[in-house]
Amino acid sequence: MKLLVVGSVAYDAIETPFGKTDKIVGGAGTYISLAASYAKADVQIVSVVGGDFEKKYLDLLQSHNVDIKGIQIKENEKTFFWSGKYHNDMNSRDTLVTELNVLGTFDPVVPEEYKDTEFLMLGNLSPDVQRKVIEQMNKRPKLIIMDTMNFWMDTMMDELKKTMSMVDVISINDEEARQLSGEYSLVRAAKAIRKMGPETVIIKKGEHGALLFKDDNVFFAPALPLEEVFDPTGAGDTFAGGFAGYIAGNGDTSFESMKRAVIYGSAMASFCVEKFGIERLEQLTSNDIFFRISKFADLVKFDCNLKE
Amino acid sequence: MKLLVVGSVAYDAIETPFGKTDKIVGGAGTYISLAASYAKADVQIVSVVGGDFEKKYLDLLQSHNVDIKGIQIKENEKTFFWSGKYHNDMNSRDTLVTELNVLGTFDPVVPEEYKDTEFLMLGNLSPDVQRKVIEQMNKRPKLIIMDTMNFWMDTMMDELKKTMSMVDVISINDEEARQLSGEYSLVRAAKAIRKMGPETVIIKKGEHGALLFKDDNVFFAPALPLEEVFDPTGAGDTFAGGFAGYIAGNGDTSFESMKRAVIYGSAMASFCVEKFGIERLEQLTSNDIFFRISKFADLVKFDCNLKE
Repeated sequence: MKLLVVGSVAYDAIETPFGKTDKIVGGAGTYISLAASYAKADVQIVSVVGGDFEKKYLDLLQSHNVDIKGIQIKENEKTFFWSGKYHNDMNSRDTLVTELNVLGTFDPVVPEEYKDTEFLMLGNLSPDVQRKVIEQMNKRPKLIIMDTMNFWMDTMMDELKKTMSMVDVISINDEEARQLSGEYSLVRAAKAIRKMGPETVIIKKGEHGALLFKDDNVFFAPALPLEEVFDPTGAGDTFAGGFAGYIAGNGDTSFESMKRAVIYGSAMASFCVEKFGIERLEQLTSNDIFFRISKFADLVKFDCNLKE
Repeated sequence: MKLLVVGSVAYDAIETPFGKTDKIVGGAGTYISLAASYAKADVQIVSVVGGDFEKKYLDLLQSHNVDIKGIQIKENEKTFFWSGKYHNDMNSRDTLVTELNVLGTFDPVVPEEYKDTEFLMLGNLSPDVQRKVIEQMNKRPKLIIMDTMNFWMDTMMDELKKTMSMVDVISINDEEARQLSGEYSLVRAAKAIRKMGPETVIIKKGEHGALLFKDDNVFFAPALPLEEVFDPTGAGDTFAGGFAGYIAGNGDTSFESMKRAVIYGSAMASFCVEKFGIERLEQLTSNDIFFRISKFADLVKFDCNLKE
């Protein structure tokens, strides 16, 4: 089935303890689309870039069967640019540069043929931009998934709550879940957030894995213990893209399906951090993915027959 | 089979955001012994208390079939006392009082009938005290497990390394693993620590679960997502006690058995934090434990047939 992705397509310049990059392609929309493209979903993307955006990156998306006719190209403007530097522990970073450029006035236009798409993934963007996309759909998608971040909680909480009330799944990190809910316990935070709208809450804990809350059910997906994280940029978006792509690919929104989708997303994120930017996501094989998922299964598998 | 536990038996006074206690029984040896008593191990303990130690607590240990003849009672001295106050997030605490008392001069004496015990759990104590116990054994136990803490790394690293070189399993938390190894990545930390002696390394991550490293194998046990942690005191010792008790109870030191033992320890720790001190560990039933372990199994269980 089809998955409509809305999110930034950008240039990033990244510095980690292992090295630094020139301007490379980045943006939530890019990571989400690439990750989702490996599941069986047909991916469409709504985004905006400037005239400086290199054609090779659009070609890259297309080579992954991503339908890019929803990407506006503003010839006389510049692509969104972000630059950041990670600290030695790789768990925190400083933003060095944020140039909104085309993203500052982004008015999303959903192409006519995307308006009946059944699965919608709203990447991290201003909550009113996210809502404008929902409002352009012909019919309410079967599942709407959103990402967001602390910046919107600090600056546009009312708008954010309005958008949250319209979605089915929210994917945020642990600190954001605590900020959004005012609760320290993640179990309580998820409960409070579910009352704001999303029936399903995914809390990403980075190297500590992710929690999935749906109704009274909870599922925990570990992160793979890695010898080294090369570049965490885009890991959260890649996770969300893998999750959304898996759900759209199978069309199944049950809790059991979402559990597998969280593992799929975690596996995609574990690839993402192995190289700079999207490099590792460019040419994965289905065998790569299958073996990675088997590692997740092995990592937590135990024979629980303790009654013997 | 039999498990010999060496560890402090103490008085604690605890303050958390939920309330505070008077002097209650505490100490690593107490938590370890109680947790291990629920597995099928016959527990023996070597420790020391003062004349002020209440008989009812010795009776409590005995009512859990813990053999207490290895507890020295120094009539004219006082029991080790620790007092601490937890911060609101329950992840950090201030030590208010530490009175070593009898523990300051603790010279462990292993009773003759304990000297052939096949499983040995060294609770957190000065590494030379831990070593004195190993040296009193008639034959090398089948498995020696040790706990330790950052204090000994700061003050007695050489002694600590000597003791580490004599054990099979070490159980420490993530910050301690980083300090001990100088490695930030826990995968690398475990590798470095294994080179210091212990073939098996368990890294406890509190609310984020625990990692088990043995040879090239790694296993991850989640922590149960809890609405509220009432009192974390003793959770790490309870985990270690559950682990050691499970291994000794079954006599099986394979990786598969250790995986189940880590889950068993995690389940026992999840009970421990529900009430003050040892309160929740006093009267568990085998059904309580079985259902708790089932929760752990459900939490991470997914059908990984993703090839469909």
